[in-house]
Parts: sequence; C-alpha cells; structure tokens
Amino acid sequence: MSDSGSERHSNDDGPTLWLEDLQPGREFRYGNYAVTRDEVIEFASRYDPQPFHMDDAAAAKSIFGRICASGMHTMAMAQRMQMDFFMENGVQVVAGLGMDQFRVTAPVYPGDTLHMVVVIEDARPSESRPGMGVLTYLSMVINQDGTVVSSYLSKLMMKCRPQTVPRVDA
Amino acid sequence: MSDSGSERHSNDDGPTLWLEDLQPGREFRYGNYAVTRDEVIEFASRYDPQPFHMDDAAAAKSIFGRICASGMHTMAMAQRMQMDFFMENGVQVVAGLGMDQFRVTAPVYPGDTLHMVVVIEDARPSESRPGMGVLTYLSMVINQDGTVVSSYLSKLMMKCRPQTVPRVDA
Repeated sequence: MSDSGSERHSNDDGPTLWLEDLQPGREFRYGNYAVTRDEVIEFASRYDPQPFHMDDAAAAKSIFGRICASGMHTMAMAQRMQMDFFMENGVQVVAGLGMDQFRVTAPVYPGDTLHMVVVIEDARPSESRPGMGVLTYLSMVINQDGTVVSSYLSKLMMKCRPQTVPRVDA
Repeated sequence: MSDSGSERHSNDDGPTLWLEDLQPGREFRYGNYAVTRDEVIEFASRYDPQPFHMDDAAAAKSIFGRICASGMHTMAMAQRMQMDFFMENGVQVVAGLGMDQFRVTAPVYPGDTLHMVVVIEDARPSESRPGMGVLTYLSMVINQDGTVVSSYLSKLMMKCRPQTVPRVDA
C-alpha cells in the first residue's frame, strides 16, 4: 500500500526498524482513529457515492441500518494509522509491492474508534537485491468492541540492517 | 470494494446488468478522471502523509521525481469511476466480497487522466443463495499514455436475472 520512494521514514534521532526486526509472529498494535460522520459523508461523496454512505433515510432502509463508511474509506483510515506508525518507528520501507486478501468483515459507523493489529507473516531477504528484503504481514482493522471490520495482507520491500563489519574488497 | 447493501443501483428507467449479463471475457472500458495536484496533496495529507505525495522538494529527491498520488488515492479514484459505471448501468450489486492481487505498477502524477478497463473473469451462480451469484473481475487503472498504473481482482455478490417463468410449487 505504501508506494514508497523515500530514503528514510524516521528522523535521525528516532527508533529504526529494519527487516530483521520484523520476524514472523511479531505483533504490533497501533492507532486510535475516531470515525466521524462528517468524514464518512465527505469521503463517500467524493469516492464512493452510494446512498447508504451519505443519506440517513437510504441507510435506514439498507442492511446497515444507518450511515456507514465506505470500505475504501476504512482502508484509507488504516493507511493513515500505518503511516503514522511507520514514521514514528522508523520502519525502513523501500516500496509497497501490493496487497491481497482484502476483506470487509463488518460495517464501520460514525462514532467508532479504530485501531490496527498487525502480525508479521514472513520476512525474507531478497536474492536479487542485496540489502533489501520482502516483508509480508496481515493487517486487521478493529473497532472499539474488538470486532475486526477489515483485514488484508500486504507486501513491502524493506531495507535490511546495514552490515556493521565492513567488507574487504581486495 | 463495494460493500453494498442497496436494493438497486439504477433508476427504474435505466439499463440493468444482472450476473448473467457479465459473462467471462466480457470487457468494459469506462471513466475519465482528471488527477489534480490539489486533490493529490489533499488526499495524501489526510491518509498517506509521505513527503513525496505532498512536497515538491522531497518528491524531486525521491524515485518518482515529482509529486505523485498515493496508491490508496489511485484506488479511491478507481472506486469512484466504478461506482459511476455501476449506477449508470444498473449493475445489480448485492455486496462487495473482497479484493486480491492489488498491485501498484506505475506512478500517478497530477495532470494524468485515468480510465478503467475491466475484464470479467468468472460469473457463477451461488449454490447457497438462490437468485444470487459471485462475479470475479480484473480491474486495470490506465493513464492517458496507456500505462497500467494499478490493477486488482474484485469479487462481488450480484443478483441473477429474475426468472420470467413462474415456478409451480404444487
């Protein structure tokens, strides 16, 4: 998701997370995103103008019962929580490679508060790109009741921890 | 992606597309989305605040060379083009089931104009839900030069065309 291209996601004094720091099974919890009615309606009006995202009467007649966020909006809010975490923790992203298994599992309503639980599934040094590797991780977007509202699997190209022993080249 | 719940996506006088109308191999081309600098910066500021999406100097130093859209923003623009197509053509969506194989394949820059090419991969009546079925389709987001900037595979629950011959139930 993070189609990155920056050199660093941390300031020089902050923490740094390299590929080796993100071993399979490691879990992170972060984010605290308050979903507001205004933002739900504004996002939907622009990108997903289905009536049950914008109109109380239409939403009341839908399976959702009241206005709920676009699934795309939930992904965008998750992206914001992820980027804040990356920047605060100096995650050494090179580029986002893609996403799979995106599922919407429960509605998101105005008034909800969302957080993320992320589980590292795989961290593998690249054979073709020295100093880099591919991180695979499952992201779950979870509301204040502990319900997973959305989940997806991401792949990122990351930097490996620089070698501290200098190479002797001739 | 379209976490639907509405009864109809068309007005009563418009066209209607049922599951049976969307057979594998059928292709659709739609959309004409002008990507603006203001929108790129506004979206990124809110949901993906990486410097190369917002800041000219940072972008100049990145692999992108200049400000480019967040991959999430590209998906949101694609969602808008899809929803406009669905509403104009009365696509009989019941619910979005998910998305796979999302890939970012080229940057999207302010000044680009995006359209969609969608290819139906599978259309299969549900065994457990009479009158409904699952549509699987590949969406490609393409710029004015014909470059695919992003692609993904979606699954939708759709309505089947209503039977015109009434069943005789003893």
